[in-house]
This record gives sequence, C-alpha cells and structure tokens, in this order.
Amino acid sequence: MGTQFSPQRYDHIVKLVVTGTIGIDTVYTPRDKREGVLGGSAAYFAAAASQLCPVRLVAAVGGDWPSEHREILCGFPGVCVAGLDARPQSRTFAWGGRYFEDINRRETLFTEVGVLQEAPPIVPAAYRDSEYIFLGNTHPAVQLGFIEQFPERRLIVADTMDLWIRTAHGELTTLLKRVDGLIVNDSEAGELTGFRNAISACKKILDMGPKFVVVKKGEHGAVLMHHEGMALVPAYPVEEHQVVDPTGAGDSFAGGFMGYLARERRSDAAALQTAMAYGTVMASFALESFGLDRMRVLTSAEFQQRLASFQQLARVG
Amino acid sequence: MGTQFSPQRYDHIVKLVVTGTIGIDTVYTPRDKREGVLGGSAAYFAAAASQLCPVRLVAAVGGDWPSEHREILCGFPGVCVAGLDARPQSRTFAWGGRYFEDINRRETLFTEVGVLQEAPPIVPAAYRDSEYIFLGNTHPAVQLGFIEQFPERRLIVADTMDLWIRTAHGELTTLLKRVDGLIVNDSEAGELTGFRNAISACKKILDMGPKFVVVKKGEHGAVLMHHEGMALVPAYPVEEHQVVDPTGAGDSFAGGFMGYLARERRSDAAALQTAMAYGTVMASFALESFGLDRMRVLTSAEFQQRLASFQQLARVG
Repeated sequence: MGTQFSPQRYDHIVKLVVTGTIGIDTVYTPRDKREGVLGGSAAYFAAAASQLCPVRLVAAVGGDWPSEHREILCGFPGVCVAGLDARPQSRTFAWGGRYFEDINRRETLFTEVGVLQEAPPIVPAAYRDSEYIFLGNTHPAVQLGFIEQFPERRLIVADTMDLWIRTAHGELTTLLKRVDGLIVNDSEAGELTGFRNAISACKKILDMGPKFVVVKKGEHGAVLMHHEGMALVPAYPVEEHQVVDPTGAGDSFAGGFMGYLARERRSDAAALQTAMAYGTVMASFALESFGLDRMRVLTSAEFQQRLASFQQLARVG
Repeated sequence: MGTQFSPQRYDHIVKLVVTGTIGIDTVYTPRDKREGVLGGSAAYFAAAASQLCPVRLVAAVGGDWPSEHREILCGFPGVCVAGLDARPQSRTFAWGGRYFEDINRRETLFTEVGVLQEAPPIVPAAYRDSEYIFLGNTHPAVQLGFIEQFPERRLIVADTMDLWIRTAHGELTTLLKRVDGLIVNDSEAGELTGFRNAISACKKILDMGPKFVVVKKGEHGAVLMHHEGMALVPAYPVEEHQVVDPTGAGDSFAGGFMGYLARERRSDAAALQTAMAYGTVMASFALESFGLDRMRVLTSAEFQQRLASFQQLARVG
C-alpha cells in the first residue's frame, strides 16, 4: 500500500474475483437494530478487498434489490459489478439474525433463499482471466462449478458453513481436494473435523487437501496452518461498546486476506502470514458499523495506521 | 538467558519472591488421572520462574506433606525453600479437580483447606530485601499483610480468584490500590468488572488501581494493558492430545512473566510485553505433564528454542 490507494495502479495486474451472496439483512444487536442492510458474503468480501486492490464480484440479485444497495457497491472504486447477475423475476437472498449480549453468539431469525435456489450466477467472459479466486460460502457443488470457469486461476480459496458440512459432505470433500486454501470459523472447523481445538482441526483439514487453512476465532484471533508451519494472530482489540454489528467481519477478514495476496501476487508462507494481519485489521473496521457503512468511509491512512498499531500491539518478545 | 542457565549468575542481584499455596492435588483428565501430585500456585510459579532466575518461596505445609514433594521442589536449583513454613500438627492444602472433554473447563471435586485456614506463612527475615513480589491467590487481607513485609519492594503483582471477588470485595479493592500489577484469568476479570470482553475488563481494572493488568485467556492467549497502551499474545499452539494436565498453567505463566522482569530488573512497557511471551511459553511446557514433571526436565535450550519458534509464529505483518 504505502501511499494513497489507487485501484488503477493495479488494474492490469491484479485479477481477484469473489463468488458469493448479496443479501438484504435484518440485524438485531443487544442495543440496536437495522432492517434492509446491504449484506452477503460477496458484498462484505468485495468492500474489504477493494481497499487493497480491484476486485470482481459474481453474485445474483433479484428484482427487489434496492437501487441504493447498487449505489453503495458501485461507490467502492475498486469493486467491479459487471458480474452482478440481476434477475427481475426473482427475489434477493434475505437474512435476519439476532446477536446475544455475548456478541460472539447469534441466532438466525429467518432465511429467504430467493435467487440462491436458482442456477448459480453467470461468470462474465471478461472475468475468465481471474487469477485469485475466492469462493464464498455456497453449496460446494456450485463452488466446484465456478472453479472450471477460471482457467487462469493461480490461487483458489474457499469458505464453507455447517449446513454443507452436514448435508453435502461428499461434494465438500471433492472441493477440498481442488482448492489451495480454506477459510472457516472455529465452529465450522470443529464440525468438519471433530476437533474443538483449532490446531488439531487445522492439521486434519490439511489432510483433506488444501495447501493452507485459516481458522477464524472471532475476538480470539485466527490461526493459519500450511505444510511448512503456522502463524497466529490475535484479534485487533475492540471494546464491547465498539462492536456495532459483527455481521460480515469474517468475510471482511477474507477480503483483506485475499486482497493482500492478490495485490502482492504472492502466496508463500511469509505472504500468508502478513495477509493474516491485513484480514484481522479489515475485520476490525467492518464491525464498527451496520453493513458497509464503515468500509465506505475507510481511508488508506486509517487502515495503515491501525495496521501499524496492530503490529506494535502484537509484537512478541 | 542466552546460554546455559546458571542461577548463581543472578544470585546477588535478583530478589524475586512468591507467596502462595503448596497443595496436594488429585487431577482427573478425560484420558488419565493422578493422585498425590505436588501442586499449588507457589509451587507452579516457583518452578517456572526458577527457569529464568532464582526465586524465594513463601508457603505453609502440614505434617502430611510428602518428603518426595520436598525433594521435587528442592530439585529446582533456582528455588529457595527457606520460606517453607512446615507445621507438623496441621494438614497440607489439598485440592481435587476434574477436567471435561473441553479441557478448558473443569470442576472442583474437593478442597481441604488445612493450613490455609491458619495464620499466614511466616516470611523469613532473609527475604525482607525481596524486590519483585508475586502475591499468589489467597485472601486479599493476607496478601495486604505480605506487602508490608517487603520494605525493599520494587514491583508487586497479585493474583486473585472468584471466591475473593465475591466474599472479600472491600479488602480486594484496597489491595488493588496497593499493587503494581494484577494477573487474572478471563473469567475472574469478567467477575471483577462485569465485562465479558477482555479489553473492556482491562480498562476497568486499571481504574481500580494497578499500573498494569494481564488477563489470561487459556488457549486464546493473553492481554496486557497499562496506561501507555497494551500488548496481545496468542497462546503457544498445542494440540488436544498434547495437553496432559492444564493445572498450574496460569501460575506457570505468572512465573515466566515475573521471572523475566526480575531477571532483567525492568518493568517498562517493552519489558512487560516481552514478559508476556516468556509467560506464554512457560505455560505451554507446564501443561505437558501432571504436576512439575515437565518443568523438572526443561532445559534452557528447549525453552529458548520454543520462544524463538513462538516469536516466528506470532510475528505480525
């Protein structure tokens, strides 16, 4: 990064794409609530990654998708929305959730799958040269289908969730043999492996195929493991009252993580370790607001300042 | 440290003392059990600190204290046992506990307070010139009484527990205004402040008096906060099957933390941050065995190697 962010600088060399969901979220927190929030894994990922490099977005929305949400997404200079698959006769994916006093816990109030039950979004021909691919959480068979559409792929990283671990284990097993990396949270890692302990879970996931795995532990940081070793980061320290809405923090972590790798065109052990810090700091901004409000006004200087502060806080020895 | 450990090197300059308990422990883990284990906060602390510098121990034991336990403690070249207050007519403190499959959770099976219900152990006159003081967990009024017996004190750090937070809040409040630092685990910090969030809890504890506070989060690492800033460390990564017995890991953390500060004769922000790494690595050895078995055979080279590995794993950015 260094100086003022300029997506144009990287236009010709960075080809990062995210496939995932766009959602209309309803969020209840212990102290507030918000309806009709722009959400979904692809939206959070893209907003975060675009702070570091241009990012292409592949997701489907319905005829009910608010024009203000489109304006918000288009307002990120680094986000390319050519891969937004708008379906006038369909409905946008909608999700409602409520966070408990312990803000790390939440319950889903409703899910209206809408376009998610239809054919996967179409990948524009112009995206076929994408090199850094993030497969946001969806059915692993759909994720597998996306892989084939990126023949120039250099790095494929996937997310998944408990639903697919339980209901699509076969496809997920196949997917894990096809991706370079997996990013999951600690409960998903536990469900996938049977190990509550993140280190044990990482080891078992590596045996399933990926070259590296990241387990996100929310306020307790994250663990990276690959065949040459591992890396540990704490979470950026935030107080209870600073957490406005944790929704999308994990996707923002992934966006910061992949954005760094794509920008640097690296995926060696040292780059993966640095990417963990980028993801951590990006997530810390995401939870300061509902939806993408904080990311919309985030400046490169703010990000750099917090990253430097984090490196100081987390210095060991 | 650097080369082979030699307590003699520091004999004339390091004056570290720990006051606390010696216990006879019965420990059930999901896969094993052990009776008659040498335990107690002072034993674990002293064994850990002695890896870094000489340490003086103040604790009471009863007539039933096994001679093998004395031999184990005396087997640590850096531990001075002149402050062992042996009371032939009394019984040694005994504790029994059982760990759940989630090894971070345990229940107390029994507690036989024995000597703990009598007068506090006597501090030998030769210990009055102690400068680095660790007040292991006991009634805060007893901890306050110890402070006066160390007129040369340079740094006083205390531990406490939920029992005193609930039943001796007044004395604890007084104690917190008299100590330089407090080291507690996350559940104790939550109970003391009402904040589940470790960062919020640290801030509130600083308002109660200490110049710094450390909140230990077990497998999730630890947080240090003081008035100039904070420091975060993850835990050293251990797999489920490597955790033989977590008893005493927190006291070993404190021993490594204080041992480093006493050896360096420093307590500035940078030293406190480095001490967090020493505490973390010391704790990671402690849980590899029941009692002090692992600490008895720990070499300086092993410690240095793991510390260097930890610094690499936890490097950020």
